[in-house]
Amino acid sequence: MGAAVIKVLVVHDTRLLRQALAILLCREHDLEVHTASWSDAVTGLVSWQPQVCVLDVDAPEHAAPMSQLALLAEHAAERKCGLLMLASPSRPGLLYRVSQARAMGYVSKGEPCEALLGAIRHVAQGEQFVDTSLGWDFLQAARVPLTERELSVLSLASQGASVAEIAGDLHLTHGTVRNYLSAITRKTGARNRVDAIRISQKAGWV
Amino acid sequence: MGAAVIKVLVVHDTRLLRQALAILLCREHDLEVHTASWSDAVTGLVSWQPQVCVLDVDAPEHAAPMSQLALLAEHAAERKCGLLMLASPSRPGLLYRVSQARAMGYVSKGEPCEALLGAIRHVAQGEQFVDTSLGWDFLQAARVPLTERELSVLSLASQGASVAEIAGDLHLTHGTVRNYLSAITRKTGARNRVDAIRISQKAGWV
Repeated sequence: MGAAVIKVLVVHDTRLLRQALAILLCREHDLEVHTASWSDAVTGLVSWQPQVCVLDVDAPEHAAPMSQLALLAEHAAERKCGLLMLASPSRPGLLYRVSQARAMGYVSKGEPCEALLGAIRHVAQGEQFVDTSLGWDFLQAARVPLTERELSVLSLASQGASVAEIAGDLHLTHGTVRNYLSAITRKTGARNRVDAIRISQKAGWV
Repeated sequence: MGAAVIKVLVVHDTRLLRQALAILLCREHDLEVHTASWSDAVTGLVSWQPQVCVLDVDAPEHAAPMSQLALLAEHAAERKCGLLMLASPSRPGLLYRVSQARAMGYVSKGEPCEALLGAIRHVAQGEQFVDTSLGWDFLQAARVPLTERELSVLSLASQGASVAEIAGDLHLTHGTVRNYLSAITRKTGARNRVDAIRISQKAGWV
């Protein structure tokens, strides 16, 4: 076994928490750790060339920055850096969305730090790693209840757009938008539109 | 100066993050640290008798458990344990709600860990501490835009309750509920009801 040092970049928008995570990882002799906020992440990746990049994808301050994640994933793929997602349990929609970035590993934040350490070492070896406690969430994520079009409508609705605004943005008629909203409400088992948005946000679909 | 050890209880529902925070605090020679989830918090407080209890009040998995917070605050007050809130910036509504628990200190999670360490030592001495970076948020929190009644209506609406359900729960007529919802939409500068809920959730009012 080579005792090569693994370079790990921790990306989290909350300074206190990224510092705490870095200190936790730094106690391991085989890890060298830098940190970055989401806005510095690409720069950190390109300049420091880590083997593993650990991302917290559902911090409250920064609800899954998908466009930034996609950009980071592109740079990571070019440099053979493995992405490792820290996810909360019971948010299959978020897993579905972040899995588009083709991460090598997924760890639940509900697990003790040993799970994260194990995952980092797997990903550094080029191996995939999925926390067993996220298995059920991945199963649900694979059974996407909503179509791509419904997800687009839901995303705009959750930002407060009216039927008319959604129709304008997506080049649909008002009636079609209303049909999509009804389908979303039915499929999510919601009582009404506001409830459908609440349920979808909780599961991480928007 | 006595070099007495300060007993600190860290409460966070995400195991990985509470472990990371504990490790960060444990590096200080004057701090002894235990951790608890929200469900264990009162037991931890009563059995271990810490001088300071550090609470993360806006983790995504656990959106401000106000009833649990009130219970914890009662036990803390009886035992002269100082509560110290970890808050995210730009959520004045959440600050307003958690400030009802009469915490001794407030630290922004956007600050480096030295801010938290300083706050812990102040609170352990029985002194109040508010992070200067939260000053503007406290100012906004003090200017509550919504009345208590409007906050109750908003809270039910954000959980997906219909006008009829809100009216039933709060013993109001449908027309009165609609008037409250219009006032909330106007005061939050929202485009419509869904938008008002989105804006209020972001600021932490519900």
